[in-house]
Amino acid sequence: MFGKIGGRSFLSSSLCNNTGFLQKNNNVDDKSRIVGFFNEQQPKSILTRDNERDPRFRRTETDFSNLYARDLLPAKNGEEYTMQFLLEVVDILTNYVRKTFDRSTKVLDFHHPHQLLEGMEGFNLELCDQPESLEQILVDCRDTLKYGVRTGHPRFFNQLSSGLDIIGLAGEWLTSTANTNMFTYEIAPVFVLMEQLTLKKMREIIGWPNGEGDGIFSPGGAISNMYSVMVARYKHYPEVKIKGMAAAPRLVLFTSEHVDQFTVNLFLLLHLSHLICIPLQCCSQSHYSIKKASAVLGFGTENLILLKTDERGRVIPADLEAKVIDAKQKGFMPVFVNATAGSTVYGAFDPINEIADICEKYNIWLHVDGAWGGGLLMSRKHRHKLNGVERANSVTWNPHKMMGVPLQCSAILVREKGLLQGCNSMCAGYLFQPDKQYDVTYDTGDKAIQCGRHVDIFKFWLMWKSKGTIGFEKHIDRCLELSEYLYHKIKNREGYEMVFQGEPQHTNVCFWYIPPSLRLLPDGEEKRQRLHKVAPKIKAMMMECGTTMVGYQPQGDKVNFFRMVVSNPAVTRSDIDFLIDEIERLGQDL
Amino acid sequence: MFGKIGGRSFLSSSLCNNTGFLQKNNNVDDKSRIVGFFNEQQPKSILTRDNERDPRFRRTETDFSNLYARDLLPAKNGEEYTMQFLLEVVDILTNYVRKTFDRSTKVLDFHHPHQLLEGMEGFNLELCDQPESLEQILVDCRDTLKYGVRTGHPRFFNQLSSGLDIIGLAGEWLTSTANTNMFTYEIAPVFVLMEQLTLKKMREIIGWPNGEGDGIFSPGGAISNMYSVMVARYKHYPEVKIKGMAAAPRLVLFTSEHVDQFTVNLFLLLHLSHLICIPLQCCSQSHYSIKKASAVLGFGTENLILLKTDERGRVIPADLEAKVIDAKQKGFMPVFVNATAGSTVYGAFDPINEIADICEKYNIWLHVDGAWGGGLLMSRKHRHKLNGVERANSVTWNPHKMMGVPLQCSAILVREKGLLQGCNSMCAGYLFQPDKQYDVTYDTGDKAIQCGRHVDIFKFWLMWKSKGTIGFEKHIDRCLELSEYLYHKIKNREGYEMVFQGEPQHTNVCFWYIPPSLRLLPDGEEKRQRLHKVAPKIKAMMMECGTTMVGYQPQGDKVNFFRMVVSNPAVTRSDIDFLIDEIERLGQDL
Repeated sequence: MFGKIGGRSFLSSSLCNNTGFLQKNNNVDDKSRIVGFFNEQQPKSILTRDNERDPRFRRTETDFSNLYARDLLPAKNGEEYTMQFLLEVVDILTNYVRKTFDRSTKVLDFHHPHQLLEGMEGFNLELCDQPESLEQILVDCRDTLKYGVRTGHPRFFNQLSSGLDIIGLAGEWLTSTANTNMFTYEIAPVFVLMEQLTLKKMREIIGWPNGEGDGIFSPGGAISNMYSVMVARYKHYPEVKIKGMAAAPRLVLFTSEHVDQFTVNLFLLLHLSHLICIPLQCCSQSHYSIKKASAVLGFGTENLILLKTDERGRVIPADLEAKVIDAKQKGFMPVFVNATAGSTVYGAFDPINEIADICEKYNIWLHVDGAWGGGLLMSRKHRHKLNGVERANSVTWNPHKMMGVPLQCSAILVREKGLLQGCNSMCAGYLFQPDKQYDVTYDTGDKAIQCGRHVDIFKFWLMWKSKGTIGFEKHIDRCLELSEYLYHKIKNREGYEMVFQGEPQHTNVCFWYIPPSLRLLPDGEEKRQRLHKVAPKIKAMMMECGTTMVGYQPQGDKVNFFRMVVSNPAVTRSDIDFLIDEIERLGQDL
Repeated sequence: MFGKIGGRSFLSSSLCNNTGFLQKNNNVDDKSRIVGFFNEQQPKSILTRDNERDPRFRRTETDFSNLYARDLLPAKNGEEYTMQFLLEVVDILTNYVRKTFDRSTKVLDFHHPHQLLEGMEGFNLELCDQPESLEQILVDCRDTLKYGVRTGHPRFFNQLSSGLDIIGLAGEWLTSTANTNMFTYEIAPVFVLMEQLTLKKMREIIGWPNGEGDGIFSPGGAISNMYSVMVARYKHYPEVKIKGMAAAPRLVLFTSEHVDQFTVNLFLLLHLSHLICIPLQCCSQSHYSIKKASAVLGFGTENLILLKTDERGRVIPADLEAKVIDAKQKGFMPVFVNATAGSTVYGAFDPINEIADICEKYNIWLHVDGAWGGGLLMSRKHRHKLNGVERANSVTWNPHKMMGVPLQCSAILVREKGLLQGCNSMCAGYLFQPDKQYDVTYDTGDKAIQCGRHVDIFKFWLMWKSKGTIGFEKHIDRCLELSEYLYHKIKNREGYEMVFQGEPQHTNVCFWYIPPSLRLLPDGEEKRQRLHKVAPKIKAMMMECGTTMVGYQPQGDKVNFFRMVVSNPAVTRSDIDFLIDEIERLGQDL
């Protein structure tokens, strides 16, 4: 075991702050990073402000140590304290926003679960019978951010969702303040209309005539994909709603064998004595969300049939047709095909038109999972990768991924109107006012599997207003250019090997870094075994140092490799350069 | 049709602003309400502040009319503009917060869908190719709030979720700023631990030994209830996960026939020519979320068996036992019973202990839906209403209802550890690092049906820290006292009739207001028909005037009645008095 200095592991200190590191990496970014690290160690009083110049952020004289939640509104005379308290919180948040964009700050200040659970310098997670003062609440807020991960940092490449859009953030603050839900026009008139208009716009962009169809924002891509399977089942076997799965023949679903989403969400535990990272979630999304849907909805996971992919991770249409025929010969009923538009690891786009031909031929519901790749529809340059999407019966599209909308924001769009309602409505028999003289499209509660539904639309609507369609297009084109830059930088660089050949379709760039000690080893099991451990080790050190974060995973018979993605508008070429330098710095002696 | 004046219907003006109304209701509240209404009509410049005294809210000199989203961070030199912009947004939000608690402001400024869609004085919902200036974005923010509903207003009684908790609000602002998700410890270390500790605390309060068990926060009560059905199915028929529903016998579920949740979420369309409100969602939650789960999960809605209730809306245990025996005799397999703790309309608590006896006898999963009533567990005075809850296999408990936590915050708690994981995990085969030396309880992604999951925990954790357990207890006791006050005020008052007799178990008080013109009518169909229209008409006028909002619905053979609930800490006796006065003012001439 390594020793600890002030709660930080010795390992971290030795890797991140020794003189050699400073000398080796003495560019401005790295120097300021180290300085930034030490600056962050300075204790800060609540009343000390970074920005004394801004008159609106003058230090307040309010003493929060004797104030409690009960002193805020609706307490009598609580207004002034409430405003002061909220402004203190905003001060914490705007400082965090500032630092998020500042490359001299760390991406994260990593601690192990047991460290956080034991309590860090006054940050105690335990809940008590008695209230804490507002001063402590402010400290808790500051510490929560301090020990978290800056997902908006220009060097956070770990997830498909990254970045911190300022307009989106403002939208979320407003949404929380409005504190309502999407169930009815009555309690969310503006948000319900915004949702309707935005979904229509998305359907127009998909290419459905006049933007006709239906849709709803759901709590994430997995639920959106689940909606698609439900609606497909309802379309083909509406009696299942009332009679259950027993009323249908054996239904089968099809999706790519390839990993799709959240493979990169690896839960790492840095086992310090061995310096090994252990990936827990080596599961794929085609395997994952469609497989989850198969289990949840009562199909059974063995009735999900996996489709072969080419070397780039794209479904092979001939394999789909062969498996459809095979299933029918066995007496099963194919009802649903998922085509992935932007797989999680490779960023692969399945050939939608060819898949649509087969679906039409055999009367199968075609769903396009564009959770990750749907954003490319906004780009005139890149939308051809989804050619044929207008032939889909339903589409999942997560603006919270490629379009930089804050989490969560995921849409399920359905070409045929009325199916969502038919599938999920429970109320037909209860309508007893015969004179229905209103437009029920304003109601959404009956389309959803939820009752109350979080307002996910406003931030997206506001971002669209503020950027225009062309703003999203620019963002997407730029992210893809950065990926091309990375691809060209490393494809022939010593110590790198690409996982698949050719320019990436999406922003995903998949590669192995091969440390000098492995470069001369002959190909074979020993090299594989050792290479498999490289990415986890480098990732562990990145997190300990807090300098950057990037995902890795294995895929099929390929050992662990890095998967780089760009969706954050704050990223520049220098950040890509930094990542490569950092991988080499941390990996050179492995 | 009535005429329109400046986009507001004549009906509204005549009811809300005529001299007679002012003379009839010339108490301070009403006067200031009217004055407040006119004040709200004054156009406001972005740069005009209500509170010039606060130095932190001095008018800024920034001209946002030539600034765009692209000028904000990460733009070069974007920091200053970003801070100014966010402070402008905060200014809008804090003004909204102030007004929310101000009884002289309206609860809502009602407009019809077509009015909002046509565009209100510069508020245009349409999305364009080109960006809007930040000045317009700020106007959009202000207008979004202006045309919405103040769910935190002390006179908003329309939903089970009401109020605007300042600490919870701060928590939500921080959550949006952190912009991460709950999938892994890696990207949400602090939030993942907070969730774990909070769920354990909730299980302790339920009464499970040492707080052992499992749980997760989900996107609302309907999804939490769906989890309970899924886990019950997995416990009894784990093979369904792989083989589908075909692998199990015909499974049946049981729940109350009584309405439970969201009945009050009536989608109203005010048909002006007839002044009739039409309830669209006359559906119940027992019927609703459990029925939705039956459909979604492949059981089929006809396999949900409804249980008879007593006059207070509580399930009759003998009916459950009879129906279980009957189902078994037909060869069906009873797997799941839902006991409701706090039904939506009556606030009824099913007798959990007696239901648990039957579930144990027949080996059936017992779920307690405490979405609405679970909060009473925090009160030593009222928790007896959930006696036996510790015998449940799973419990739904929505802190976003009775505990005043901002939307959304719903927990599903499961007594047996490992079932959530077993039920939803898709990954077992993919773990290929043999040396798993970490505690997988920190991972949550594999327990959920979602992939990414919104951070719902922080606001709740922060509120608990700031109030302590005793703070929640006081809040709950106070809300129940207010309901008793209302009950005693109207139970013998002329023109009122209680829907059921006796003190309410929860804060729900259900009553008819009978206008003078109906009081002398003999009981019979004509009176029923006319009474049925009273609550919708009064509600329509309330919304037009914007003075207050309260829910109504029919129940079984009972015609439309008001259902009053209190969950907002801002409510006082004077607000209860106001509601009654308002009902009488608006209803006296019907």
